[in-house]
Amino acid sequence: MAAALMLRASVSLLHRHGKVCADWLAWVSSRAMASKTPVGFIGLGNMGNPMAKNLVKHGYPIIACDVFPEACKEFQELGTQVADSPADVADKADRIITMLPSNPNAIEVYIGTNGILKKVKKGSLLIDSSTIDPEVSKELAKETEKMGAVFMDAPVSGGVGAARAGNLTFMVGGVEQEFDAAKELLTCMGSNVVYCGEVGTGQAAKICNNMLLAISMIGTAETMNLGIRLGLDPKLLAKILNMSSGRCWSSDTYNPVPGVMDGVPSANNYQGGFGTTLMAKDLGLAQISATNTKSPVPLGSLAHQIYRIMCAKGYAQKDFSSVFQFLREEENL
Amino acid sequence: MAAALMLRASVSLLHRHGKVCADWLAWVSSRAMASKTPVGFIGLGNMGNPMAKNLVKHGYPIIACDVFPEACKEFQELGTQVADSPADVADKADRIITMLPSNPNAIEVYIGTNGILKKVKKGSLLIDSSTIDPEVSKELAKETEKMGAVFMDAPVSGGVGAARAGNLTFMVGGVEQEFDAAKELLTCMGSNVVYCGEVGTGQAAKICNNMLLAISMIGTAETMNLGIRLGLDPKLLAKILNMSSGRCWSSDTYNPVPGVMDGVPSANNYQGGFGTTLMAKDLGLAQISATNTKSPVPLGSLAHQIYRIMCAKGYAQKDFSSVFQFLREEENL
Amino acid sequence: MAAALMLRASVSLLHRHGKVCADWLAWVSSRAMASKTPVGFIGLGNMGNPMAKNLVKHGYPIIACDVFPEACKEFQELGTQVADSPADVADKADRIITMLPSNPNAIEVYIGTNGILKKVKKGSLLIDSSTIDPEVSKELAKETEKMGAVFMDAPVSGGVGAARAGNLTFMVGGVEQEFDAAKELLTCMGSNVVYCGEVGTGQAAKICNNMLLAISMIGTAETMNLGIRLGLDPKLLAKILNMSSGRCWSSDTYNPVPGVMDGVPSANNYQGGFGTTLMAKDLGLAQISATNTKSPVPLGSLAHQIYRIMCAKGYAQKDFSSVFQFLREEENL
Amino acid sequence: MAAALMLRASVSLLHRHGKVCADWLAWVSSRAMASKTPVGFIGLGNMGNPMAKNLVKHGYPIIACDVFPEACKEFQELGTQVADSPADVADKADRIITMLPSNPNAIEVYIGTNGILKKVKKGSLLIDSSTIDPEVSKELAKETEKMGAVFMDAPVSGGVGAARAGNLTFMVGGVEQEFDAAKELLTCMGSNVVYCGEVGTGQAAKICNNMLLAISMIGTAETMNLGIRLGLDPKLLAKILNMSSGRCWSSDTYNPVPGVMDGVPSANNYQGGFGTTLMAKDLGLAQISATNTKSPVPLGSLAHQIYRIMCAKGYAQKDFSSVFQFLREEENL
Repeated sequence: MAAALMLRASVSLLHRHGKVCADWLAWVSSRAMASKTPVGFIGLGNMGNPMAKNLVKHGYPIIACDVFPEACKEFQELGTQVADSPADVADKADRIITMLPSNPNAIEVYIGTNGILKKVKKGSLLIDSSTIDPEVSKELAKETEKMGAVFMDAPVSGGVGAARAGNLTFMVGGVEQEFDAAKELLTCMGSNVVYCGEVGTGQAAKICNNMLLAISMIGTAETMNLGIRLGLDPKLLAKILNMSSGRCWSSDTYNPVPGVMDGVPSANNYQGGFGTTLMAKDLGLAQISATNTKSPVPLGSLAHQIYRIMCAKGYAQKDFSSVFQFLREEENL
Repeated sequence: MAAALMLRASVSLLHRHGKVCADWLAWVSSRAMASKTPVGFIGLGNMGNPMAKNLVKHGYPIIACDVFPEACKEFQELGTQVADSPADVADKADRIITMLPSNPNAIEVYIGTNGILKKVKKGSLLIDSSTIDPEVSKELAKETEKMGAVFMDAPVSGGVGAARAGNLTFMVGGVEQEFDAAKELLTCMGSNVVYCGEVGTGQAAKICNNMLLAISMIGTAETMNLGIRLGLDPKLLAKILNMSSGRCWSSDTYNPVPGVMDGVPSANNYQGGFGTTLMAKDLGLAQISATNTKSPVPLGSLAHQIYRIMCAKGYAQKDFSSVFQFLREEENL
Repeated sequence: MAAALMLRASVSLLHRHGKVCADWLAWVSSRAMASKTPVGFIGLGNMGNPMAKNLVKHGYPIIACDVFPEACKEFQELGTQVADSPADVADKADRIITMLPSNPNAIEVYIGTNGILKKVKKGSLLIDSSTIDPEVSKELAKETEKMGAVFMDAPVSGGVGAARAGNLTFMVGGVEQEFDAAKELLTCMGSNVVYCGEVGTGQAAKICNNMLLAISMIGTAETMNLGIRLGLDPKLLAKILNMSSGRCWSSDTYNPVPGVMDGVPSANNYQGGFGTTLMAKDLGLAQISATNTKSPVPLGSLAHQIYRIMCAKGYAQKDFSSVFQFLREEENL
Repeated sequence: MAAALMLRASVSLLHRHGKVCADWLAWVSSRAMASKTPVGFIGLGNMGNPMAKNLVKHGYPIIACDVFPEACKEFQELGTQVADSPADVADKADRIITMLPSNPNAIEVYIGTNGILKKVKKGSLLIDSSTIDPEVSKELAKETEKMGAVFMDAPVSGGVGAARAGNLTFMVGGVEQEFDAAKELLTCMGSNVVYCGEVGTGQAAKICNNMLLAISMIGTAETMNLGIRLGLDPKLLAKILNMSSGRCWSSDTYNPVPGVMDGVPSANNYQGGFGTTLMAKDLGLAQISATNTKSPVPLGSLAHQIYRIMCAKGYAQKDFSSVFQFLREEENL
């Protein structure tokens, strides 16, 4: 809330582009027909890179942009148009996807000095796939609306592998009439595109899922560890949990105990997967949302603290299922 | 551990029935053939009553026993033989099932002044379906073994409804060769009989499952509450979680938010189901096992404390999914 | 961090008042001599009201301002000058004290449309006694500095009683050379004025103290409750703790158990004192600071959640030591 | 409770030494006058060794006993009488002090095959300074009473240094009329001997103090860490806390941050002091007492888990204030 109100407070000092236009639906319809016209893509990191490539594969010419010029090189060599700044992208495309690491980057890209909103065209569709504070999404949407354009939040679930394979899940928040237009693009990058409600609910869904995921992963890790110490075979214990009420994704699909499953990070020394540091970031967002909405999240909070401590103790780059290793007694200490 | 060692320490003072007989397998085989001979059943409470009836339905005459004589009345009227004490049961039956509320009751029934072991026959099979400390199970098994008999722990998952319907799950610990003999009886009362390993592992499996269940239930409750406050529709949020990595039994089968699912306690003002006070008891056992084995269980511990506080705040008799109600802001306060 | 960066990002769009003047020390010296010239006071609530009166008592004419006109009436009747807006105050006084409930209010009062910074004079001294996010304090300081003025954060410890008696504690952050000028005013309202370091450290000190206070209060409550249940007399237990390593302010000065001490909220049904809802607010700030600086605060986090749940369960208006009552078994449930 | 009931259940099978004698006060008075007659001392480890020496220094001949014969050597060389077993000690002395590591040792020494109670004389005074479960103390007291003797629990606060210097604190539970007799001996080893109430309350007081100590130590550590990251000087922050409501023994007497105080473990790489593993043990006892009495201890529980994890991560032998180091971001990871 604080963040949002601050943004709002200072934004109120900005020079305004006149009254918010009421007939944006008219503009929107002109854009919606422009399929296969260039799509702006801002943020070509680990996730953005394969996502943008999948768009290209589906026949959409893109206009690439990243704060690090090297990130654009690969695209340039493929003949892709590269823009100097988010504003420049907005000048050249009326559909833009952004994939950025955190709140401040998203703010800079949208409302910064050379941000998208500096040159956004009326009726443009802006889709932000970053995972950020839903309050920030809401504020960016308000500012976007003032320019007569449309903002949707569409964070993803699934990692780099899913980004490459084009089977990410998108959780989308924003005006429902625009969902189909967004879906047209998102389907090129994901196998699952879910409409969640008004702006910010995409972020909310993402944050909620990951908070529950973190809780059940730590819960699975400590349960498996306790069971093993009580004399149970880990595979058998996993089997029992999975046919009982303790069953969860972390126990049946991504078990954190080495030797229980193949093809998961615990089978590969916790390499790959979803890094502890990323989980800690998402739990930080959940914590801030919970604090702002005065929602008690006792286990979510403790999960946040545990992943935070793990980051400080050498687990930052390991998959978040390494909490099993963290909790386990180390024999040689 | 403390408990077990204490028991062991004091038990070492007991008069011994001579050396532990090595040829118990001989006795055992004579008993194992005696199918449909009377089966002792001690503990005819909410769970034991329907379990015993299911045994009778399957053609096993039972010898009933309960510390409260009224509990036996119903069986007496059906023509069932009633015994005065656990020792008396042991005198009349060589297969006995016990279903008792807690550690001290189990200890009293097995090694008390009129306990089973006072008159147990060599080769008898004693199956304890109580949920108790696995260390106590192990000690009871040792004392039973000294008498040349066999002890197995076989706690159940599933409540009174499952007990009536005969589809409980039994998690069984004990000598593997005896598992078939135990299964013969348990199958009359449950649809699922799982062998978990040596004595105590049945309890361990039960405790582990319920700890993870408690964690994921509270996690689901706080996640759903947070999502709702962030503007998500509860049904939609549940749907999203259930197709994502946040999925768990508490979210997809027993959702704690009223209106999301039918036929669960949250749809019925949290009546029926598995009471908060019972969950708190099981979490207490998990906590003691974790303390004794020096296993860190940060979320399990906090879940225990939350259910403990709920018991103090009026939720003791409600289903454990009422944690959603507990965490929720009460509008009129 | 997010909040700060957002503010910074959007502020970068503001019209700038030319380069930040290097010779502010010159302006400052002219103001510092102007003792007993009018002092602006913005925010005349429960705390601000008695604080402002103490300033007046010490001979400082004040220029009063509050978003609720009624809050100014009392002062108006005393012949005090009342200003229309924070900007108006800044036009009339070069020393201003603000006492506001939360982040967004502080932002509005400083950088809003009619905020102080709209008309602040070069060399002015702005002292913010609100308890807010230290990152917000830092950003307000930066914006103030751009106008050639000085911002200090000076949150207080002590409640309405201490405000009336003029013995608050002020924890002050900001440029050290300005500390004496701030102290001149703050001494009229508090008995203890501590310099903490650069801007934001006053808030940091306040937040840290209250987080540790919350932890030790809950710790004292659960320890006293456990001891009582184990058969200890509460007064004796408090005495033992207070002469041992468990000693803390919550055990020896503000004991939460009714009957142990006189003159504290626990002796008066938890009325008066420091409300649970205010403690929850400060813990929310601590949580946000910890999340932003990636500092693990496991107990601080859990304390936050417990006070959050208490707010939802009817304890919002009671003193924060009522956590003893919250944790206690209620006999009649 | 479980433990106690188990003990009780099995003890009921023991051969009884006739009816409990009602006139134990008569025996007691004969013993109480026997000052400077030999005192039995069982358990000559790190703590027991210097304690026993202090008794000798005060002119009490001792009869030494330890399960490890080497532990007695030093005393033997000083001319002290050494007994073969606790029973043997009881045969030779009517005042006995025990100082043992944990529940099972205490049980063995008192009611084991060669335990004290095998040969205890009527009217003997048995003082147990071990830190154990108060329920076990109560059961040992009951068994002792049956023999016509007196049992008191008298756990200590203060480490090896205080044991050597003779300034331990003793928290004593038991029959009040016997307190003076116990105090006569305990004063030789401690500067502070506090009567806490009936049997078990000495343990309760010890457990309660250490639980609150653990909570406030972790709280201090995370608060100091947060403050430092927010830009506060650690010494200044400690000073502010210590004059405010965050003040506690861990902040003002045993600060966990290196550089803040001299002469504490944090000034010496967390060597010496009170080991993490011992704190984890005491928190385990607190947890078991809380579970058995159904007392919610949310922060105590979490403190237990944190110290448990620290034991697994290489901090077992460091002073418990090393939690500051544990929570801190390690720069080179």
